[in-house]
Amino acid sequence: MSKGAIGVFDSGLGGLTAVSEIMNILPCENVVYLGDTARVPYGTRSEKTITEYVRDDIDFLVKHDVKAIVMACGTASSVALPFIKGEYSIPIIGVVAPASAAACRVTKNKKIGIIGTPATIKSKSYEREILALEPDAEIYTAACPLFVPLVENGRTSPDDVVLYTMVREYLEPIAQKGVDTLVMGCTHYPIIESAIAKFMGSDVSLINPGREAILYLKNESGIEKRNDGSGSYQFYVSDDKCGFISRASVFLGKDLCGETFLVSLEK
Amino acid sequence: MSKGAIGVFDSGLGGLTAVSEIMNILPCENVVYLGDTARVPYGTRSEKTITEYVRDDIDFLVKHDVKAIVMACGTASSVALPFIKGEYSIPIIGVVAPASAAACRVTKNKKIGIIGTPATIKSKSYEREILALEPDAEIYTAACPLFVPLVENGRTSPDDVVLYTMVREYLEPIAQKGVDTLVMGCTHYPIIESAIAKFMGSDVSLINPGREAILYLKNESGIEKRNDGSGSYQFYVSDDKCGFISRASVFLGKDLCGETFLVSLEK
Repeated sequence: MSKGAIGVFDSGLGGLTAVSEIMNILPCENVVYLGDTARVPYGTRSEKTITEYVRDDIDFLVKHDVKAIVMACGTASSVALPFIKGEYSIPIIGVVAPASAAACRVTKNKKIGIIGTPATIKSKSYEREILALEPDAEIYTAACPLFVPLVENGRTSPDDVVLYTMVREYLEPIAQKGVDTLVMGCTHYPIIESAIAKFMGSDVSLINPGREAILYLKNESGIEKRNDGSGSYQFYVSDDKCGFISRASVFLGKDLCGETFLVSLEK
Repeated sequence: MSKGAIGVFDSGLGGLTAVSEIMNILPCENVVYLGDTARVPYGTRSEKTITEYVRDDIDFLVKHDVKAIVMACGTASSVALPFIKGEYSIPIIGVVAPASAAACRVTKNKKIGIIGTPATIKSKSYEREILALEPDAEIYTAACPLFVPLVENGRTSPDDVVLYTMVREYLEPIAQKGVDTLVMGCTHYPIIESAIAKFMGSDVSLINPGREAILYLKNESGIEKRNDGSGSYQFYVSDDKCGFISRASVFLGKDLCGETFLVSLEK
């Protein structure tokens, strides 16, 4: 079924925020999803290791005859995409450029916050994109290393004291700068959007990188789109299929049991 | 220098609690340490994946001519040791048997708590060992999936509200059972021993699995020991050498910069 599907990958669950947007925005498309759950998290690892892992992920999806790949992972998009761009014959779409463009469209006071994994923040990928579009922007960043483990362990409620303490600790310095726009620069973060919104307040616009990447895929990537039927979905994970199914099913609101398969990515 | 050294490995920093015990208990021994920081954490992964990773770790240390290997990882000892035992010609010492024996020696009321990673708790490794030694023991267990990410991110103070909230949440059900002994069944956990002790109270004995494994290595493993000179140390990590050095140096109280090397474990 995957002929001409859209390939989507992430280190774990986070990329499902992009899948959820495909379901809404491009409901006729087929999707092949890969979560590298044997090696999650990516965002605390080195540039070399992340790039190796990302090549494994793309090679896996390419073998499934996908027509485009969405790197639904802020870390992969920030760290590996610059090295990998141009190596493949199909479009490979990261989240950084679309989310940065959205932030520049939305901001009024040109004060933009960016949160992401340590590797993403260290790469300065979002800063470069935003400053290229909006040289006057004031950008404030924060690495949030514990958000991915918290999400992967299901601590997603704004009433969770552990999650909310970390939200406050990571975001307070950015909030104090008076940003009116915050890029949730890791695809895991929209899963805790309500906790982030509770802290930042309703005046701050939150940019969802998965949503922006899928809007870009639809409107600007030039791929041939399917216009009829409803899309089918296959999910591949490199470890802990049952854990993935139970968390992903809650997140996407449907049972993924029959569509989820375990694969090995290491060579 | 590694000829006849003791090999020690863990998924990340946790095994350093065993290295610290070697420094105290067997100060003449040379040590080759491996932290698989490219694939940390192990404890939330499947049995098959953990066993593959552990074989890579052991094969790496065997190439360094070590005379014995300490699996300074509760997850590896619980999940992979039963499969791997007997495959190698040198002693491979896990933490489960020594820590279980210590718990049985120390308990008075025969109520023993065990905390560990999800994989360790699911394996029931400590329960089997303890019940073989003390069939009347009452055993209460809790999986603590966020302790390893918290430790690896430096959240180790008993005054840290995030750490202490998780300590209370994970340990309260065990504490309510009136245990007098708690096995810290993951080598990362002694790094947060003061937070665990603060919650459990001074009447509860805490068993440090790294310490018990090194006492076993000294007294019961039959290895030939070095009796003069002071040991030298080499540290290998599979990713993020700088992050390891900075956290490990704080933990061991010495600068490991000149003795730490980056290696690749995947084949």
